[in-house]
Amino acid sequence: MATADLDYGDPRGSAELRRVIAGYLRRVRAAATNPEQVIVSTGFAQGVSLVLRALAQAGARCVAFEDPGYGNAETDETVRAAAAAGLRVVHVPVDDLGLDVAALEASGAQVVVVTPAHQSPTGVVLAAGRRQALVDWAARRDAFVIEDDYDSEFRYDREPVGVLQGLAPDRVFTIGTTSKALAPAVRLGWVLAPPALPDAVAAEKLISDRGSSTLDQLALAALIRSGRYDRHLRRMRVIYAQRRARLIDALARHAPGTRLTGLAAGFHAVAHLRPTADEQAVVAAARERRVGLYGISDYRADGTDGPPQLVIGFGNVGERAIEPGIAAVADLLR
Amino acid sequence: MATADLDYGDPRGSAELRRVIAGYLRRVRAAATNPEQVIVSTGFAQGVSLVLRALAQAGARCVAFEDPGYGNAETDETVRAAAAAGLRVVHVPVDDLGLDVAALEASGAQVVVVTPAHQSPTGVVLAAGRRQALVDWAARRDAFVIEDDYDSEFRYDREPVGVLQGLAPDRVFTIGTTSKALAPAVRLGWVLAPPALPDAVAAEKLISDRGSSTLDQLALAALIRSGRYDRHLRRMRVIYAQRRARLIDALARHAPGTRLTGLAAGFHAVAHLRPTADEQAVVAAARERRVGLYGISDYRADGTDGPPQLVIGFGNVGERAIEPGIAAVADLLR
Repeated sequence: MATADLDYGDPRGSAELRRVIAGYLRRVRAAATNPEQVIVSTGFAQGVSLVLRALAQAGARCVAFEDPGYGNAETDETVRAAAAAGLRVVHVPVDDLGLDVAALEASGAQVVVVTPAHQSPTGVVLAAGRRQALVDWAARRDAFVIEDDYDSEFRYDREPVGVLQGLAPDRVFTIGTTSKALAPAVRLGWVLAPPALPDAVAAEKLISDRGSSTLDQLALAALIRSGRYDRHLRRMRVIYAQRRARLIDALARHAPGTRLTGLAAGFHAVAHLRPTADEQAVVAAARERRVGLYGISDYRADGTDGPPQLVIGFGNVGERAIEPGIAAVADLLR
Repeated sequence: MATADLDYGDPRGSAELRRVIAGYLRRVRAAATNPEQVIVSTGFAQGVSLVLRALAQAGARCVAFEDPGYGNAETDETVRAAAAAGLRVVHVPVDDLGLDVAALEASGAQVVVVTPAHQSPTGVVLAAGRRQALVDWAARRDAFVIEDDYDSEFRYDREPVGVLQGLAPDRVFTIGTTSKALAPAVRLGWVLAPPALPDAVAAEKLISDRGSSTLDQLALAALIRSGRYDRHLRRMRVIYAQRRARLIDALARHAPGTRLTGLAAGFHAVAHLRPTADEQAVVAAARERRVGLYGISDYRADGTDGPPQLVIGFGNVGERAIEPGIAAVADLLR
């Protein structure tokens, strides 16, 4: 490191890392960007908090979240961050095509937080028509979209879906993180801001923590620049694809007929239970057997019942643990 | 690292680092603390922002800053962070004994941010009577003191002054940082909260960035635990003491009679100019000669004139550069 790099840095982040991230996002995520639009953050959590505060400062009053999605202010820190930024929070339903844009239109929100590449937690990919409708909404309403691009580097069957930001760079903030590609403990991510708004986000970053660790930033820049970040992602995609195949296979054998969706990308899938199943009882019993899964109602804004579904993660579990885990769940379902 | 440490961590910080910091602050700063009161932050900037937000949430409406001190909302991000937290900002004068506690009492503030060990920028040490008056004020008014303990590890002539927190652990937040001991680029610090309030600060940390890098935290814990952090501080104290001696000597020879104060600790001193001197002209001319110094008016809340004084730093300058720098300043003063 140069001695100058040991001092307080640019609150937007190291020039070197911002250059590397802009290049990475253009290449891998089809983003329309340059380093001037990139602000380095501690991860998604800080990124979304900074953007919400910046938009509240700029006059936004209401933000919409997907439902199911992060959940509500009691269960989720992102929803709490929105409230802390002084924004009213509304929830907009997600269906098989992703966010219901007509319902968003009716909600009166000026900002929406979405997971278009792999909706969290349903796993639905935002349909092409909805993508266009969403950016049209933003342009018409002078509104902004915050794109949580959390696991899009891990896509299996189809070509990667580019970021929504590529469709409407003036209206979309894209927030990325190394939490899935490397580890949450790294605490590095980025905000890609519309060309008119990086300064507003940087001003929030300055009062929030005066900038992220330059040492960590230069290490990440070196990792990406060297090609090892891409190699690591390629290697992990194969490993996750194997776990995913094992999950599909195990569920088909142990609980035949169980519908499994949301598998196009990422590290989790949604298993649809029969309508009379008691989702929370299955979750509780599975936890007792040391199988970690979630009920989709944990992700609903009002927590009330919808169709019973299980959110099954395979990102943080060895391939061999999947079969007995699914066998235990199938046993409970019977 | 254990695999579990790679996941999202406790928003308060790594249990290991919090244990190490609590021990360090008891030993080195005479703090009354335990790990439950420690929240790891990105540095002073984040620490003070989290505490101000937590206190605003708890009902505080007005915060006082020292004058001269950080400056005003236009010049300083800490003052801006207070305004962003929804707090009204007032300024309270500093005299030769430190913060004027009677003026604080009259200000109506419920929170005050102070630099008791080595006032920034005057270098005054808060007098014993004032220390007691300050904690009495807090107890009487149900108010809180935020202690910016930024450079107290570097003290030269006298025994270190313990933290104010030791006098009134229920009323004082102490914020420390590695920015001076290691480097600003490290971006690690800590908040030591009153026993009733760590959860309120941790809640703000959670929505702010969900926690600091565990990798960095474990590295810092290992550094302190190993004794190398203390050894580094001892070595640096000698080096800074030499620079300080060189500064005193050079000023005495090149500008005899110039009063120099604030030298008990830290990396800067205040040179008192004759009353008719044009402080800002000297600063500008010095900068043209590549000598970095500041006028004390940059630290005043209203920027208007007080006695002309120069704030001269010696923390980030080689010992050999001090003599020609002071010679150039003396030339300007003539």
